[in-house]
Amino acid sequence: MASSSGMSGEVPDEINVGLMGLGVVGTGVAAYILGKASSLAAATGRNVNLKKVLVRDITRARDIDLPSGLLTTNAEDILADAEIHIVVEVIGGTDPVENHLKQALAAGKHIVTANKEVMAKSGPELLALARKNGANILFEASVGGGIPIVGCLMNELAANDIRSIRSIINGTTNYILTRMANERTSFDQALSEAQGLGYAEADPINDIEGIDAAYKLTILASLAYRQPFQSADVYCEGISRLEPQDFRYAQELGYAIKSLAIANLDDGAVQLRVYPALVPSEHMLAKVDGVYNAVEVDGSLCGQVLFHGMGAGSEPTTSAVVGDLIEVVRKMGSQSRSSGSQEWAGPGNGAALTVRPIGDLQARYYIRLDVADNPGVLAQIAQVLGDGEISIAAVLQRDTDAEAGSAEIVITTHPAKGASMQDALQIMAGLSQVRRVSNVIRIEE
Amino acid sequence: MASSSGMSGEVPDEINVGLMGLGVVGTGVAAYILGKASSLAAATGRNVNLKKVLVRDITRARDIDLPSGLLTTNAEDILADAEIHIVVEVIGGTDPVENHLKQALAAGKHIVTANKEVMAKSGPELLALARKNGANILFEASVGGGIPIVGCLMNELAANDIRSIRSIINGTTNYILTRMANERTSFDQALSEAQGLGYAEADPINDIEGIDAAYKLTILASLAYRQPFQSADVYCEGISRLEPQDFRYAQELGYAIKSLAIANLDDGAVQLRVYPALVPSEHMLAKVDGVYNAVEVDGSLCGQVLFHGMGAGSEPTTSAVVGDLIEVVRKMGSQSRSSGSQEWAGPGNGAALTVRPIGDLQARYYIRLDVADNPGVLAQIAQVLGDGEISIAAVLQRDTDAEAGSAEIVITTHPAKGASMQDALQIMAGLSQVRRVSNVIRIEE
Repeated sequence: MASSSGMSGEVPDEINVGLMGLGVVGTGVAAYILGKASSLAAATGRNVNLKKVLVRDITRARDIDLPSGLLTTNAEDILADAEIHIVVEVIGGTDPVENHLKQALAAGKHIVTANKEVMAKSGPELLALARKNGANILFEASVGGGIPIVGCLMNELAANDIRSIRSIINGTTNYILTRMANERTSFDQALSEAQGLGYAEADPINDIEGIDAAYKLTILASLAYRQPFQSADVYCEGISRLEPQDFRYAQELGYAIKSLAIANLDDGAVQLRVYPALVPSEHMLAKVDGVYNAVEVDGSLCGQVLFHGMGAGSEPTTSAVVGDLIEVVRKMGSQSRSSGSQEWAGPGNGAALTVRPIGDLQARYYIRLDVADNPGVLAQIAQVLGDGEISIAAVLQRDTDAEAGSAEIVITTHPAKGASMQDALQIMAGLSQVRRVSNVIRIEE
Repeated sequence: MASSSGMSGEVPDEINVGLMGLGVVGTGVAAYILGKASSLAAATGRNVNLKKVLVRDITRARDIDLPSGLLTTNAEDILADAEIHIVVEVIGGTDPVENHLKQALAAGKHIVTANKEVMAKSGPELLALARKNGANILFEASVGGGIPIVGCLMNELAANDIRSIRSIINGTTNYILTRMANERTSFDQALSEAQGLGYAEADPINDIEGIDAAYKLTILASLAYRQPFQSADVYCEGISRLEPQDFRYAQELGYAIKSLAIANLDDGAVQLRVYPALVPSEHMLAKVDGVYNAVEVDGSLCGQVLFHGMGAGSEPTTSAVVGDLIEVVRKMGSQSRSSGSQEWAGPGNGAALTVRPIGDLQARYYIRLDVADNPGVLAQIAQVLGDGEISIAAVLQRDTDAEAGSAEIVITTHPAKGASMQDALQIMAGLSQVRRVSNVIRIEE
């Protein structure tokens, strides 16, 4: 048996942390390391010290009192300091962060990062570099804030072949969709409310177009399927085209509308997508409200496990970052040959899975059409779907403007291939009686 | 920096497992080790072999084909075999398991166990013994089946001070309560259905009286508060006194009835209890149906994180056991000084928390009374509550048998101390107009 005795000399008793970034999360992390030293020592068996904090502006007023001399604007003060064992990165983005992280790993420093973008774009490279240098890189905070989904995919659920991950992992869009569903506000109004509350940025495109969720899904899928995916592999649809009446019809049909990030394995290929979808009202994912996040993992052994919690904010993200910090200290000196995250960078454990294009996806659809209120219009539309071998599950028809002679038709379909649906929609849009294909939303059961 | 090189000789390339128990879970674990050898090797970086399986009857027909020579009825074939590095125990109970586990730890073997009873009763002793011998003991499968709550409390959520854990961790009682709520069946009928489906044992007392949940809560609380608790510290009420009308009234008042296992920190003391409670219908815990389990952790940083999944069964439990097996192999040779589970056995990281008696618990109450249908009866009851400084939140009164002149009064209260409520109930029961205090159930918001 291996014994833990006799090796303790290899890991120092005093562990020094260099923190990169002192925004809301950085401030939370710094406050924890400084204020909860005894908790950290109890959890790790070692003293964990904050040695240096990288900021852009050293003179800026801060919400935290730091010991003098801690702040620096020079990354080298952390990267070139051989006494700093762990770099905690909470700056975000890739430039200059990616280079900082590579330099830190090359020096054998361990990394804890909250950075979804750098992990989605350069995760495999960083993980390979970590492995080469005997370092760990942990990134629980990059997905789902206080929800421990990254660690669970790497560790606790490691025995499972993952059939699917279905998630709500962007709090901004979920807040907007919750407002639109509950208050029937327009997208623009809900967005501006979210901006007013600080839930959405001034330039909200990364959130509302699904780019942020695609980064996070890339990370989850890479962990689940143990091979690197690219965010370009993720098909993305944003939420800006949703209108209040979509929520009304969805509710009438027994559904909520949620922006889902989904990875699933289908016949040896992986399907990755972020899009608004109709979710049955009684499903747990339909009940995830406001800025909350949720991740449902369907594993070969565990079955469906759902995680629900706060996906963003200083405290939940600090929970994840400090949890990783504790883990990285606990692991220091480990001769572990593999961890879930390192597998992602590795050669994999079987044939690489291909990514199936969105046109191949079988899904049920919700279609809303603005039509002329004439006899026969529904028959024409049904004919187009029938010709495409797409069968109808339900139909709603509503007069919208009797004077203008316009009506709205809502159709839900049975499962159809994406490419067939695109063909059918194109034909429908060309029908003289169809004024507009107002919306097309997939249905997830 | 510590380096992982130069130590690899200390951990063998071939890891041998001795499995104790070959019931439904043991069969699942054996099938995994034998059938998914390459997955295990990819996940751990080492080969994991099944070397011996302890059974009671070697001649019994099995659902699994094992290589010849693997089965033994002699525990010493595992415990005294120096080539067995890890013991996986899925027998259950304390005798003879506790002695087996102690002997294995004394020999420096690592342990993975699914045994809630032995961990609740002897966890601190086993963990101390593990620490002393440089071994790990992991027990994810002891609580919540496929839900990774044990590991998350030890690792991913380790940065948090835990304010409370509220959980549904006994699938048998949750199945019975779900049937009683949905079908308005009697307790006896729902129990016998559960027995017919194999969800409840012939002698169901451990489940329905909350003993099983108390074991599990003891483990969760010990992890959350990082000190050993005893299952005797857990106040327990079973579900057998619930009647169909309780579910009807609860629904009318906007609640579901669930058997909750709760640990919370209140003014420096821990409160531990298992009891049926009214839970607001819109709360996630109210929506946990059938044999599903759920655990809601409220942490100082993460906020409320909810885990939901299958709490029992061969596959979910195998997910947890094999997850631990992977972790224990990954950790072999680690010089980690502390892990969440070892802290539980250790001296703690502050003053030990006391356990507050149930009489001190502040709770809202639901009270159902069988009364004489006479004028003034409600006034008498309200007077008793008022005298006890317990204020009423809502009242329902229903004639139940006009001929016999009996009625049912249901009262919900604002928060009151348990001891005050007991006093008031005793006085109420003595009122001439009160025929019976039919039920008293706490309300959890």
